[in-house]
Amino acid sequence: MTSPISFISDFGHHDEFVGVVHGVIAKLAPQSQVIDLNHSIGRGDIKAGALSLVRAIQYLPEGVVLAVIDPGVGTGRRALAVSTHWGHFVGPDNGVLSPAVAMVGGALSMVSIESGEVMIPSPGATFQGRDVFAPAAALLASGGARLEDLGPVVDPDSTVPLLLPLPEAGDESVTGEVWWVDHFGNSQTNIGPDELAALSLAPGGSMTVRIGSSSYEMRWVTAYGDADSGELVAHVDSAGLMSFAVNGGRADEELSLTEGTVVTLGKGSPTPE
Amino acid sequence: MTSPISFISDFGHHDEFVGVVHGVIAKLAPQSQVIDLNHSIGRGDIKAGALSLVRAIQYLPEGVVLAVIDPGVGTGRRALAVSTHWGHFVGPDNGVLSPAVAMVGGALSMVSIESGEVMIPSPGATFQGRDVFAPAAALLASGGARLEDLGPVVDPDSTVPLLLPLPEAGDESVTGEVWWVDHFGNSQTNIGPDELAALSLAPGGSMTVRIGSSSYEMRWVTAYGDADSGELVAHVDSAGLMSFAVNGGRADEELSLTEGTVVTLGKGSPTPE
Amino acid sequence: MTSPISFISDFGHHDEFVGVVHGVIAKLAPQSQVIDLNHSIGRGDIKAGALSLVRAIQYLPEGVVLAVIDPGVGTGRRALAVSTHWGHFVGPDNGVLSPAVAMVGGALSMVSIESGEVMIPSPGATFQGRDVFAPAAALLASGGARLEDLGPVVDPDSTVPLLLPLPEAGDESVTGEVWWVDHFGNSQTNIGPDELAALSLAPGGSMTVRIGSSSYEMRWVTAYGDADSGELVAHVDSAGLMSFAVNGGRADEELSLTEGTVVTLGKGSPTPE
Repeated sequence: MTSPISFISDFGHHDEFVGVVHGVIAKLAPQSQVIDLNHSIGRGDIKAGALSLVRAIQYLPEGVVLAVIDPGVGTGRRALAVSTHWGHFVGPDNGVLSPAVAMVGGALSMVSIESGEVMIPSPGATFQGRDVFAPAAALLASGGARLEDLGPVVDPDSTVPLLLPLPEAGDESVTGEVWWVDHFGNSQTNIGPDELAALSLAPGGSMTVRIGSSSYEMRWVTAYGDADSGELVAHVDSAGLMSFAVNGGRADEELSLTEGTVVTLGKGSPTPE
Repeated sequence: MTSPISFISDFGHHDEFVGVVHGVIAKLAPQSQVIDLNHSIGRGDIKAGALSLVRAIQYLPEGVVLAVIDPGVGTGRRALAVSTHWGHFVGPDNGVLSPAVAMVGGALSMVSIESGEVMIPSPGATFQGRDVFAPAAALLASGGARLEDLGPVVDPDSTVPLLLPLPEAGDESVTGEVWWVDHFGNSQTNIGPDELAALSLAPGGSMTVRIGSSSYEMRWVTAYGDADSGELVAHVDSAGLMSFAVNGGRADEELSLTEGTVVTLGKGSPTPE
Repeated sequence: MTSPISFISDFGHHDEFVGVVHGVIAKLAPQSQVIDLNHSIGRGDIKAGALSLVRAIQYLPEGVVLAVIDPGVGTGRRALAVSTHWGHFVGPDNGVLSPAVAMVGGALSMVSIESGEVMIPSPGATFQGRDVFAPAAALLASGGARLEDLGPVVDPDSTVPLLLPLPEAGDESVTGEVWWVDHFGNSQTNIGPDELAALSLAPGGSMTVRIGSSSYEMRWVTAYGDADSGELVAHVDSAGLMSFAVNGGRADEELSLTEGTVVTLGKGSPTPE
């Protein structure tokens, strides 16, 4: 029984990094399908990688997740392999796996990948995606190794957590931050529609969005196509979170925002300038 | 019998969109090979997507085409599944499928994908590549559904056509437009060599190319390597259409053209400036 | 017995070139796994393609390499298929295959791909990745053709070599060049740690790096994480060569270097300005 492997990294598409990881997997688990989830995570951006993975996990085939967003490569940080009811997760101990592991019900057990029989010897310690994580993922996918063969057991309480900020609800508004700006400029926040419902805001109505010293009035629509051409709107996106979009344009440019920008959604009219 | 799926979109490689569609397919059609044809189509550029697909279709394995270039996502536009002698085509009713369907002999039957048993429930209507088109394509590829299981039959005459402009032949010249500027700057027109043959132009000779108020004299060569270094030339490209290229350079920059630019190819010398 | 195919090119991800090659392979060798090693090689950059392939080859599953970096497409240059103990290599006769073929022990035999039964007829001669190289690779992978079926035998001494410059050792320093600047700005030279050991330089110590008229003192560390934030360091990279990196930054920008830049590594302090 060979499992599929879903692979996310910050390797980009400029070099052979992704291809070499595929090569290592093909040698150790030739029957395993590899799904390239996303290789355009910003360099070492653990939070962006974790969010991309957690948005995707319910749509991925059960098996193995291989996540290589690893700014601490070659330092003392541990390389983890985690067992869950969904399957296995392999990646650095820096929080990148945490939200997805929590989403599928939490870890059953975890180990630190240290076995010399698993790792590929290398002249340099800079490409552990190739030398440590890929062989571990491939062996778990192929059944060539069990979790406990990879290294010593790790206490889950000793792993590095990922703290994702929650939105703060006020009487008239909710304040959160931008979690994701996509290829089209659509900008997802960490605010859900339920938090706006508590303010009596609803689809079909409008809301005030404050970003820095600027305020915008936006309609809450249910599809991009409900917006007029060039109109800036709010909507519930495909992950169930409040997002900003411009029909035929880019919300990130229109609103001068990027990942991490603080936003406040609420009732009332925009502040007069 | 599982069919391969050829997948084209405007999703880009910046996010997990392409990977999530692969995940959905892997869950529903785990034996199906997915070929990533092209995910760099300009945002919502139906014509560019249709042209990329029609250039490729004869080289793709028979099975399923999944085309998600969908500026009308979430509006009333229909989601189509089309049966042909070649296999199935799945995509929005906006013309993106039309040239390729015509190329393989036309539609045998088509339906509007509306069955609740096919679509994946979602909090938002913005990612129908994941929620509507991918499951339909996967079920057709795996044999898990027949075309008529996906939704009600559609009258082909009611679908949105794609009007591709034809070149206009004059006594001394042919006027057309640029259809495709590739990664290397090579610029394909919608003019074929037969239309130039009617003007007694032939490979080995030269022609005059007018773009806006500028005129260029170009040799008609049969391979890039027949051009001198830096020379701007015309040639028949790999899709059988007249194209411009610069040996070791970029024709689009040299000629200040982009997709849609009007070009006139003809006899005679360039207009003196 | 179907072999995997590892595919490298300069096609980029802007067009359907890579997808069409996958399509051709899927038609001729439907059971063959295709690994996309790297499609971001600079246009016609034979040396960069050869170096990317030679860095990767030991990590790829034995089978077929398909390398399409081909500035001479459509000219008289030959299309080669090469047999080795590792498997087959397919690509233009311009040196792109040479270092990888040498790395796996050299060629056993080679032919010029010329058989009309292998090549796909095309209106233009500009896409031989699709029309010549892909079908040859697919037929070798599937067992549908033997090497000698593809065309006439070629004398290895008649093929185009690739001359890779070797570093020059002096009494106090070694002079080489930059071979690769990766996605992260890490900059690999053609100088190995043994050449520095001959100068009594070792990990944990420091060295002087001269580039043009500038000099830099750098520590030789064993992992990026051993560097302070923003520190410019030298290290042995994952291919076993001396490289420059900035912890959290870009060495290429810090040092104003690119592929081909001459660098001198040595003892002593930086030249005072």
